Amino acid sequence: MTPSQHPFTLARRAERMNPSIIREILKVTERPGIVSLAGGLPSADTFPVQAVRDATERVLRESPREALQYAASEGFEPLREWVASHLVQQHGMRVDAAQVLITNGSQQGLDLAAKVLVDADSRVLVETPTYLGALQAFAPYEPTVEALASDHEGPLPEALAAAAPGARFAYLLPNFQNPTGHVYTEARREALVAAARAAGLPLVEDNPYGDLWYDTPPPPPLAALWPQGVLYLGSFSKVLAPGLRLGYIVAPPALYPKLLQAKQAADLHTAIFNQRVVYEVLRHGLLETHVPTIRARYKAQRDAMEVALERHLAGLAQWQRPVGGMFFWLELPPGLDAMALLPQAVEAGMAFVPGEPFFASAPMRNTLRLSFVTVAADRIETGVAALAGVLRRAEAAL
Amino acid sequence: MTPSQHPFTLARRAERMNPSIIREILKVTERPGIVSLAGGLPSADTFPVQAVRDATERVLRESPREALQYAASEGFEPLREWVASHLVQQHGMRVDAAQVLITNGSQQGLDLAAKVLVDADSRVLVETPTYLGALQAFAPYEPTVEALASDHEGPLPEALAAAAPGARFAYLLPNFQNPTGHVYTEARREALVAAARAAGLPLVEDNPYGDLWYDTPPPPPLAALWPQGVLYLGSFSKVLAPGLRLGYIVAPPALYPKLLQAKQAADLHTAIFNQRVVYEVLRHGLLETHVPTIRARYKAQRDAMEVALERHLAGLAQWQRPVGGMFFWLELPPGLDAMALLPQAVEAGMAFVPGEPFFASAPMRNTLRLSFVTVAADRIETGVAALAGVLRRAEAAL
Repeated sequence: MTPSQHPFTLARRAERMNPSIIREILKVTERPGIVSLAGGLPSADTFPVQAVRDATERVLRESPREALQYAASEGFEPLREWVASHLVQQHGMRVDAAQVLITNGSQQGLDLAAKVLVDADSRVLVETPTYLGALQAFAPYEPTVEALASDHEGPLPEALAAAAPGARFAYLLPNFQNPTGHVYTEARREALVAAARAAGLPLVEDNPYGDLWYDTPPPPPLAALWPQGVLYLGSFSKVLAPGLRLGYIVAPPALYPKLLQAKQAADLHTAIFNQRVVYEVLRHGLLETHVPTIRARYKAQRDAMEVALERHLAGLAQWQRPVGGMFFWLELPPGLDAMALLPQAVEAGMAFVPGEPFFASAPMRNTLRLSFVTVAADRIETGVAALAGVLRRAEAAL
Repeated sequence: MTPSQHPFTLARRAERMNPSIIREILKVTERPGIVSLAGGLPSADTFPVQAVRDATERVLRESPREALQYAASEGFEPLREWVASHLVQQHGMRVDAAQVLITNGSQQGLDLAAKVLVDADSRVLVETPTYLGALQAFAPYEPTVEALASDHEGPLPEALAAAAPGARFAYLLPNFQNPTGHVYTEARREALVAAARAAGLPLVEDNPYGDLWYDTPPPPPLAALWPQGVLYLGSFSKVLAPGLRLGYIVAPPALYPKLLQAKQAADLHTAIFNQRVVYEVLRHGLLETHVPTIRARYKAQRDAMEVALERHLAGLAQWQRPVGGMFFWLELPPGLDAMALLPQAVEAGMAFVPGEPFFASAPMRNTLRLSFVTVAADRIETGVAALAGVLRRAEAAL
């Protein structure tokens, strides 16, 4: 055998796995000197470093043996209780701690949900466009993914109702979705839940951005409207720090045991050290003071990007001001292909993420995503101006 | 719908997932006052708390933004380099850092391996008995698991050769296996690799206990004999601390990209905070002084258990002194059923793990596992004496 030869036979599902297009793009675009509006990284300026330092110090002083030992697959009991109580008080959900499963970020929640709910060729319904990481998490379980017709308020209830029969679940991101930034109205939430409930269609609700609202809080989650029918995913990545990899699933009681078994099979449990550290951070009420500072910062950066877009891109692209989350979603003139324009943008000193990979099917190639959270306001203006130059030249060449 | 009703349809694979029998047993047996020789938990006395404290302090002082941000799916580059260099220097393997994928403990390595290599009804070969956690990790991918005839030196090469055609891989634990404590001789390693190579059968080699040898180091891993054909799993759980959930896969280069994509889909990356902390611990050479202290402690506890077994169980059970790892494996007189005896043992004040769940098929019900690492020497004697009373009564009743 030569080094490229090996005796391994790949599972059929391995064909469905692909390198993350976004990660490949980021490798190219995050060169020094490039104003990257591509990455969806939270601003590291928001990380509560001192609180994490104090918490780790306390955990390693007070319970080092427990923090470094094997632990329960369900997660750290006080953290599960904190999550349940937070969701009840802040989001109007009905949740018991026994329904909370701690995961390695909400990405693992997506993996476990698909592991338990998706067979090969199962139909899974998603928004148009949808979160690329979810498409990647689902892919190894070989579903048939169907894109639901969607507008600025989310998927159309009639589209959901029509596609529901036989589908395993619909994957929905009601708050400030990645990539579009859209938020569902309260009426749309009610209509979608009514349609799903009537059709017996379970929902997987992903809410990593729900706390990042800049004007008014979003309406309650779908899970508050239909607790038995919604598997809810939450994350500490956007309000504390992603490098700790902590998220959670809230599951209807009847579904919980299988998710727990899937978690146990996948990695026994999420690092108890991290869970105890985050619980220490949370129990002292950090989020109440910390999240408003994140909101203020991101809101200012959103406003800076909006000003820059209006100054440089009026007439060259269309967008809606996001009322939360991390992204502007731009629609370019028909005929422009954002993927094809990316090398020219990098050449001009900026980077974005093309919209194409976020579509489960029939991609709109004339779309792109800009993050306003990673780069400071003055550099946002520089990046948007560079993008405008690229678009102007491309439009002239149409 | 009543609360027990829900609209979710489970994937077919969910039927293959079950609660961990061991975790269920531990819940019953780890009551205060019980001498539990059941759990396979490392002794918390061995955790290098001060080193972890110093390392976290340093990481949060020197690179807090990087330690709390999203990170590469492959893992922290210096940690990958440390792993490669450790395996080259300590285990005689040929490994480049580019082949190292950091995982959430080696349990996640088992999950990712099966995710990439196992289709429904794929044949997977295992030892008799084998690590229960691996059977659980593989189960959701719906393999047909076949137990290879095995003796004290590992699976029989002729059994491997006979079962190889069409099998996806053999899962092997050459060093101080959980549950039996057996170690493969060098000759057996060579014969198994020769048989696998001749048959084109890939191997998944799991080595969580390799550093826990008490008399002489074990022979080099199978991966040192056949780098292209072996996917190797390692762990920091037994030499540092399991609560940080850090392990690694070493993959043949041709297989690496798919494992990486599976990791990305599963949870984006392992907590970079933990990776940086462990790297800080390792780069100052802690293992060189720390692992010998673990060995000395566990060796003394093994010796204490051996003395207790000889004193109380001679004639009531058979065992081999393990030369590494964490477990004694006992064979009881034919006709005794360890699972059925467990409640009596708990009643008598001690607990063990019945051998039955470690068998992929045709379980030997007259077997049980005793851990010598969790409980101090004097309590080991108490526990073994209590077990002897139970076995004596059971044998008399045969």
